[in-house]
Amino acid sequence: ANSLIDYAQELEKALRNSEDYKALTTSYQTVLQNNEAKSLFEQFRDLQLQLQQKQMTGQQITEEEAKKAQETALLVQQNPYIVQLMTAEQRMSDTINQLNKIILKPLDDLYGMVDK
Amino acid sequence: ANSLIDYAQELEKALRNSEDYKALTTSYQTVLQNNEAKSLFEQFRDLQLQLQQKQMTGQQITEEEAKKAQETALLVQQNPYIVQLMTAEQRMSDTINQLNKIILKPLDDLYGMVDK
Repeated sequence: ANSLIDYAQELEKALRNSEDYKALTTSYQTVLQNNEAKSLFEQFRDLQLQLQQKQMTGQQITEEEAKKAQETALLVQQNPYIVQLMTAEQRMSDTINQLNKIILKPLDDLYGMVDK
Repeated sequence: ANSLIDYAQELEKALRNSEDYKALTTSYQTVLQNNEAKSLFEQFRDLQLQLQQKQMTGQQITEEEAKKAQETALLVQQNPYIVQLMTAEQRMSDTINQLNKIILKPLDDLYGMVDK
């Protein structure tokens, strides 16, 4: 009989061969190969991480930081390579969420029992 | 050809039929059927959620709350039904993490590229 690991590996292989994954890989490589897009993307990601960490530790975000984040977000939205990458990332993220929802249904079913 | 959804559903079925899931279901039902264990478990869970929310929103946890949490944790550790449930939960959580690590390997591989 197959083990859980075997089933997970089958799914992994399917994910790796999926159109979504191929599109993500291609658009990521395109960004990495374009200097302007690459540096803008990294700047945007670093900034988001910084603000996220501040929020999580309850620190105030300064007006200057908020302005910088907005400006970077605007630049990002104007870069077609990054827009394509972020679209591919969103699609992949939606797919992963959908798969997770299916896989974790048994736990949902179990813990749903509490309130019944 | 099978779709990602098909593979996820296969994995879901395998998880639902796994010994880990059966053990979790049994120990959960046992706790729910024992009044003392059930109310202690719910009290413990509510308290943990409360403290977690406080931490996430950067609020201070009072000395009284910390003491209450410690006391409840001690009671929980002395209740064999809850101990069994928490052991089963930990095992299930380890399994899920292991499966996730396998399934998400393609994304790990992709984003690992940045620093290379």
